[in-house]
Amino acid sequence: MMSEFMRRIKIFDTTLRDGEQSPGCSMNLGEKLEMAAQLEKLGVDVIEAGFAVSSPEDFESVRQIAALLKKTTVASLARATKSDIDTAFDAVKEAKKPRIHVFLASSDIHLQHKLHMTREEMLQQTGEMVRYAKSLVQDIEFSAEDASRTDWEFLAKVYETAIANGANVINVPDTVGYVTPQEMFEMISYLKQHVKGIEQAEISVHCHNDLGMAAANSLASVRAGAAQVECTLNGIGERAGNASMEEIIMALRTRQSYYHAETGIDTTNIYKSCKKLSAITGVPIGPTKPVVGANAFAHEAGIHQHGVLNDRLTYEIMTPESVGISHNTMVLGKHSGRHAFDEKLKAMGYTLSKEDLAKAFADFKKLADLKKNVTDRDLEALLAGAAKLEIEEVYTLESYVVSSSSVNSASAMVKLGVKAPDGKEIHEGTGVGAGPINAALSAIDAVTGRDYTLENFSIQAVTEGDDALGEVVVRLKNSGGTVVSGRGLDVDIIGASLQAYVNAMNRMAYKAE
Amino acid sequence: MMSEFMRRIKIFDTTLRDGEQSPGCSMNLGEKLEMAAQLEKLGVDVIEAGFAVSSPEDFESVRQIAALLKKTTVASLARATKSDIDTAFDAVKEAKKPRIHVFLASSDIHLQHKLHMTREEMLQQTGEMVRYAKSLVQDIEFSAEDASRTDWEFLAKVYETAIANGANVINVPDTVGYVTPQEMFEMISYLKQHVKGIEQAEISVHCHNDLGMAAANSLASVRAGAAQVECTLNGIGERAGNASMEEIIMALRTRQSYYHAETGIDTTNIYKSCKKLSAITGVPIGPTKPVVGANAFAHEAGIHQHGVLNDRLTYEIMTPESVGISHNTMVLGKHSGRHAFDEKLKAMGYTLSKEDLAKAFADFKKLADLKKNVTDRDLEALLAGAAKLEIEEVYTLESYVVSSSSVNSASAMVKLGVKAPDGKEIHEGTGVGAGPINAALSAIDAVTGRDYTLENFSIQAVTEGDDALGEVVVRLKNSGGTVVSGRGLDVDIIGASLQAYVNAMNRMAYKAE
Repeated sequence: MMSEFMRRIKIFDTTLRDGEQSPGCSMNLGEKLEMAAQLEKLGVDVIEAGFAVSSPEDFESVRQIAALLKKTTVASLARATKSDIDTAFDAVKEAKKPRIHVFLASSDIHLQHKLHMTREEMLQQTGEMVRYAKSLVQDIEFSAEDASRTDWEFLAKVYETAIANGANVINVPDTVGYVTPQEMFEMISYLKQHVKGIEQAEISVHCHNDLGMAAANSLASVRAGAAQVECTLNGIGERAGNASMEEIIMALRTRQSYYHAETGIDTTNIYKSCKKLSAITGVPIGPTKPVVGANAFAHEAGIHQHGVLNDRLTYEIMTPESVGISHNTMVLGKHSGRHAFDEKLKAMGYTLSKEDLAKAFADFKKLADLKKNVTDRDLEALLAGAAKLEIEEVYTLESYVVSSSSVNSASAMVKLGVKAPDGKEIHEGTGVGAGPINAALSAIDAVTGRDYTLENFSIQAVTEGDDALGEVVVRLKNSGGTVVSGRGLDVDIIGASLQAYVNAMNRMAYKAE
Repeated sequence: MMSEFMRRIKIFDTTLRDGEQSPGCSMNLGEKLEMAAQLEKLGVDVIEAGFAVSSPEDFESVRQIAALLKKTTVASLARATKSDIDTAFDAVKEAKKPRIHVFLASSDIHLQHKLHMTREEMLQQTGEMVRYAKSLVQDIEFSAEDASRTDWEFLAKVYETAIANGANVINVPDTVGYVTPQEMFEMISYLKQHVKGIEQAEISVHCHNDLGMAAANSLASVRAGAAQVECTLNGIGERAGNASMEEIIMALRTRQSYYHAETGIDTTNIYKSCKKLSAITGVPIGPTKPVVGANAFAHEAGIHQHGVLNDRLTYEIMTPESVGISHNTMVLGKHSGRHAFDEKLKAMGYTLSKEDLAKAFADFKKLADLKKNVTDRDLEALLAGAAKLEIEEVYTLESYVVSSSSVNSASAMVKLGVKAPDGKEIHEGTGVGAGPINAALSAIDAVTGRDYTLENFSIQAVTEGDDALGEVVVRLKNSGGTVVSGRGLDVDIIGASLQAYVNAMNRMAYKAE
């Protein structure tokens, strides 16, 4: 479908920055590195790896992602201040292609209520800070926060100032998810016509989904001339989230003759990327999520059964294969050896280090003892959990016995390993509760003496059947307001719940240090 | 905000027809009646209650919904054949405002591959069948299936024919979720200009979300002159679903000065309606779902804490209160009496029959024994399950003991009541499995001797904390391909799982008869 008339649209992924700010979507360093590698494989042009100044952890993950990636531009967000820009520069400077993404709000609402600044002051700060950033790095993106609620004439001046001082990408965010596609089209068209020097910069858009129009707004902007789209996998992000990358990519591809545009994305990696993000964060993908939801291609099943190719045309505008959903039915079992396992992972597109492969194989053998058939989805879930927990474990789950009945309260006994100066001590705790999970977590609390608030507790069957792998994600909050999440994966959901709880406690202990 | 310049857009809800066709969203008669009553309270103009000819169950639910509703138009879908139209008429004829919704595909792809019909034949059948339907009922809607992939000139002729033969609503479906907002705007504008007699009919649109643009496409159609929008709560529906009603309503309201349009919806009933649907079907609402997802107003928390009203403006384009999310913190506990309970439900906007209220109070007392605080969300979940199961129960769960540990397999003992000619017999079954749920379901299978495939198994914590109510939905498939789902709600997730399984088995037994 390549053609010399096609425009090449750049995909700016902000899953690890705007997406990660979404409640329940925080990731640790190992998980961010794993996602960044996956995003590079997917073929995004730019990865916004974090907001370096916001925390030492964010700084470190931007820095390590910058060092890791081979061809993708790595950006850090920065407010329009010298110290933010300095920190962003320190974090991205080792990247093959570093970018600093400077932002400052431009709408009167934000200027008056948040920044307490006049329009003139805003223009001046924009110019100075873009110029300063440009003195450090060649690739500078400037965002006017809340652009969609900014007076257009003033907005044009803001971008003019940014470009005159060295910005090569100007980003137009619909920060509050307020605009409609037609308005977005008109705004981008206006800026193309009225911003002096616009031919020296690329126009980027960043849409939020509060009214359900983020994908349509992004695509309308592409029609108007935007060259870069900011988005996240699964549309995660604050409030109703950001524009979904998978929707934008597949709309551009499915309607290529309408948009006359293409991207550098390998669409057959979309499904795996979205599932990986979901497995890492524990935030499920809704069944009707376009492109990657469980039902997105649900009409497929019956049609494949009948094998009537013509029927596909009547309801299908894209194929599951095009986004990398495989109909591969080769399943592994307890007798599958190392070779079959390695081959299977290769066929699924995974490339693991020798060490990770050995760990994954051990996990697989454990699982194969409990489950007759180990499916592609089981393996995907196993591998999603393979990201190393880069922190020291204070607590380890040694063993448990839990009992639950309709006549008595549930009861639990848990053996927990607790880090001690000379190795680890084993402690036993018991608990009762209305249900088995309640009882099990109480037994742990009896050992640790800690009392966190359980902010969220989600259980998902990741595979089919009643011997499915259960995935549990818990979110804990301590009295200081620190929130962490932990994940557990097991065929026994009580076991998965305990693992997730212990995992979260370890992260809490790490953060408290 | 009422104004004489505002256009009044009609909302055509198809949650109970197109939505219910979505995998995992099937509802029984009691549940459909409950949803229909809620939709009338919400203020929708038309309810498509089902596809009467598709099954005796569908017929019966259309008929009972038609008899139940006081002011809402009740429609049944019908293919363009006499027998479909006759059955649709029988189902809706008792409604205060009955409508028959006749459809026939118009795109060349569908004509050639599905209908094996020429364009001329399609026109003729449209005319004949619309005229026949009109002889039975005054209110006739006609849909040209796959309209968005139909040649516009031919499409105009199709609608002309439908109007000439009595259709007062012509519906334009984007059946495969293919078009963009701008195309939809142009297509509706074209039809307004080129369909003779268009002034005698209302234009309706029906958009699917395969590329994530269903809401934007619906809204672009409103701008072009569409007078009716077809949509579902939570955007459920085949594949990636239908346009989400809550997104369309809140976009029209939030951007009223842009759209110059209003609806008859009581927006403060939106949240409750969406949650009720989710509780009934067991299909969760994703955290970033616009308007009704858990994170949609997540920035609220911190802002309310600081109490800074001005800050709200900077990120908030609609309030949680406007969609009926209450900040009411009055919680009930085990000492709350009947009066407090009744008052609470009234404050939450529920109006229950005396019988249902008594049942709900009993459920509440049981729950209050197990949970310290019974929150609004607990009550919502309880009440969602209050819809009566309109089928005879073959199996009843009498008691269970389940045990699970990290060292042995999980084991379960279950007592099941089984309907017998002279009352019920009690049977005991035992089972072991990799996890407690696996073991528990095996124990039931040991009694029933039946072996269903477990198609889906989802567990959700519906409320917060580790003594949260757990909701389990199971989907079973028998060897004949019949799929049923069942729901269980308990603080003990093992108990909830068993209830859900037994519930599904009862539905399977009912369907098998």
